[in-house]
Amino acid sequence: MAPPPCGPLYRQIYDRVRGSIVDGQLAPGARLPSARVMAQEMGVARGTVDMAYAILAGEGYIETAGRAGTRVAPDIGQPASQPIPHRAARGGSDRAPSLPLTFLPLTPGVPSFDLFPRKAWSQLVRRHAQSLSPASMAYPDAQGSPQLREAVAAYLAVARGIRCTPDEIIITGGFQGTLGLVAHELGIGGGSVWVEDPGYPRIVSALKHAGARPIPLPVDGDGVDVAAGIAAASDALLCVVAPAHQFPMGATLSLARRMQLLEWADTAGAMVLEDDFDGEFRYQGRPLPALKSLDCNGRVLYAGTFSKTLFPGMRLGYLVVPPALLARFRNAARYMEGGRPMLDQAVVAEFLAQGHFGRHIKRMRNAYRSRRAALVEALAARFAVPSELMSGAGGLNLLLPVKEGLGRLAAVPWGEGRFLGALPMAQLTGQPAMADTMLVGFTNVPEKQAAAMAGRLYEVIVGGR
Amino acid sequence: MAPPPCGPLYRQIYDRVRGSIVDGQLAPGARLPSARVMAQEMGVARGTVDMAYAILAGEGYIETAGRAGTRVAPDIGQPASQPIPHRAARGGSDRAPSLPLTFLPLTPGVPSFDLFPRKAWSQLVRRHAQSLSPASMAYPDAQGSPQLREAVAAYLAVARGIRCTPDEIIITGGFQGTLGLVAHELGIGGGSVWVEDPGYPRIVSALKHAGARPIPLPVDGDGVDVAAGIAAASDALLCVVAPAHQFPMGATLSLARRMQLLEWADTAGAMVLEDDFDGEFRYQGRPLPALKSLDCNGRVLYAGTFSKTLFPGMRLGYLVVPPALLARFRNAARYMEGGRPMLDQAVVAEFLAQGHFGRHIKRMRNAYRSRRAALVEALAARFAVPSELMSGAGGLNLLLPVKEGLGRLAAVPWGEGRFLGALPMAQLTGQPAMADTMLVGFTNVPEKQAAAMAGRLYEVIVGGR
Repeated sequence: MAPPPCGPLYRQIYDRVRGSIVDGQLAPGARLPSARVMAQEMGVARGTVDMAYAILAGEGYIETAGRAGTRVAPDIGQPASQPIPHRAARGGSDRAPSLPLTFLPLTPGVPSFDLFPRKAWSQLVRRHAQSLSPASMAYPDAQGSPQLREAVAAYLAVARGIRCTPDEIIITGGFQGTLGLVAHELGIGGGSVWVEDPGYPRIVSALKHAGARPIPLPVDGDGVDVAAGIAAASDALLCVVAPAHQFPMGATLSLARRMQLLEWADTAGAMVLEDDFDGEFRYQGRPLPALKSLDCNGRVLYAGTFSKTLFPGMRLGYLVVPPALLARFRNAARYMEGGRPMLDQAVVAEFLAQGHFGRHIKRMRNAYRSRRAALVEALAARFAVPSELMSGAGGLNLLLPVKEGLGRLAAVPWGEGRFLGALPMAQLTGQPAMADTMLVGFTNVPEKQAAAMAGRLYEVIVGGR
Repeated sequence: MAPPPCGPLYRQIYDRVRGSIVDGQLAPGARLPSARVMAQEMGVARGTVDMAYAILAGEGYIETAGRAGTRVAPDIGQPASQPIPHRAARGGSDRAPSLPLTFLPLTPGVPSFDLFPRKAWSQLVRRHAQSLSPASMAYPDAQGSPQLREAVAAYLAVARGIRCTPDEIIITGGFQGTLGLVAHELGIGGGSVWVEDPGYPRIVSALKHAGARPIPLPVDGDGVDVAAGIAAASDALLCVVAPAHQFPMGATLSLARRMQLLEWADTAGAMVLEDDFDGEFRYQGRPLPALKSLDCNGRVLYAGTFSKTLFPGMRLGYLVVPPALLARFRNAARYMEGGRPMLDQAVVAEFLAQGHFGRHIKRMRNAYRSRRAALVEALAARFAVPSELMSGAGGLNLLLPVKEGLGRLAAVPWGEGRFLGALPMAQLTGQPAMADTMLVGFTNVPEKQAAAMAGRLYEVIVGGR
């Protein structure tokens, strides 16, 4: 690190700008503030900045070209005299595998982006951005905007069979934010937590980050195996479960298992975190009520998200908290986070209240049913597997068994985007039965493109083994 | 709580709707989905919903009135047969004092809302909302959008003398989000943390929530008393400090104290969280470089926020993390929160990159200097106190000593909004010298209204004692 600024003022300005160029922070060709603006910004005389700029220009760091303004010299290399330890020292080695740079069509776990009602939504955004009242610019209610909490409570009552007041809802930053809050507030550090295997990988990461010990439980056609959990760790503090459609297997937790799970939680004094990320998207029969609707003793924390019903970049979700834990979770929202952005909350609240949300979900349910059928048919034909193997009651993904086997492809990092966004199941679970299965998102493949997409995927997989 | 739904389908629908009305969740007069929509929503036959609605109407819970649709009966009381334990049981007693319902003009610690460049900002919002690309709808980079981190790094280099790469920045939910992250990740539970007294009250609350022991340190004209900290708890794990303009006293941490603080942190292996919430707003002399610019050994976590430079409802801030802690904080961002909303980040990144931000800050610095001078003059005249007592080098608030004394008014909760948003200092500190001082925000009082506002405040305080 450079020594603290010292010496005459022009020298300090020179040091700052030069340091930023050398560090690579001001890129070649980048625009600098004019000397006048910089002088005001720094509270120094114009002449002081002029002098600093003159030296920098003389040394070839910057160019001042009349009305084109002042720029970092476009052809400046990294001066040989000054290595750039900052950048060079880090090669990104401490980063987890990164996401694909561009969006890929078979990405699992995301809603349709092409069918999103951009117009209705952006009109609401525009109106709220323009009217921007002092109340909406000020510090928000950390628990969530009252309007949004009311809209969510009304929605949950009708759509998910959950009775709660707006007071019992905390608006969060999607399921990941909810999980962070729950992991922190339940004090699970050092304790055991049941998780589904295979399951959503970030759940295990987040639990480990919070110091808890994840206990992976097998999943079958009735959902997670509760008896296996009781056998393995009856003293667990928490169970994280997706009862509607388990990710990624798609199974629905049976009523018998639901009762067994709640009974265990009652007996053990444990909590259940219901991850209802896609309960809305069921294509056969009626949407099932949430597990939470059976919770008589305040054992279930219910987590919903707008990531699948709207879009993930929104970062909004909601947590229904049993009354006994409310005070603690409200304080957590207040002191750990401070609340979600007002504009986003206002837009989503109105999107719900005006009925756009209900209509959107209904349209998506139909569209997903149809897109799934088309892609299943195309994949069944191209990969020569029975379509029944890919069916399920709901969700946003399907499981594609590859007869030919995946071979070394099973280990290709998802972030490389080799499979158009689809994910080898081997990266979610060590179960041998899943070694040659791909997890495929179908929500962003229009029916007309299904055959072509199946063909491309076949080429990539079977051609690339 | 009502028993789980059971019996025939129409009965389940009846139970759900009736339950929601009885719980007060569906208000008298509230609109219900049409039978057709409800049937689709629930995946049942239209006739099933018709039957449920007919019974509900027959019992007086709802009214179906042709094209006006189906509504909860407007005159419905709470049925005597069914008390409403949910609502009645909670009187809000577990809530902390709430904020004023409407925005008040003398609220401390907020930027000007009337001078915000709504037009430029809402144009950016509109454009981003309309163009909504799949990449911006998908899961964001949990560390923060690369564009925003680049813009912040460039800004910090020029405006605050901080050299860091975009890689070293985490985008957070404002200072509160930053504090939650830092408190959690530094593992301060059970340890001591130095805080300023008086100081921003939520810092102490957040630290206590994280299980740490706040050690209050006195503040004088040179800022926080570092020697007092060393005497009281040299083994503290963290010091939270606002070096630019201490809140609420306004003092700037002297260079000697800065060096002393960094030296202690080095020796003790402690960290310093620099809360640079309003370093931009200095009205005398040059803005001082951040404490972070003196940090040679990676002891300072630098926290900036857009709450004062833009507005708090945005919930965006940034944290510069020393390289040794980066991996841990990146994981925390990933597993505790999942990233901030994409739209907000894109808008703010462009607001910075296009130069709106720099211009806005410069305009606000001038406007605040002028508004402060006008309000100081008006208060000095009306309260008959020397204006020098209210001056300071920067910040968004001023301290008004009330000669007549505050008496019992000192305890009136701020949330009641009795003082037009101003806050009795007695609620921030027990120091006797502050017992009769008010903390007054000046950013939302146009020069022309200063005299009238001073008059109103005088009436409320001196008339209300």
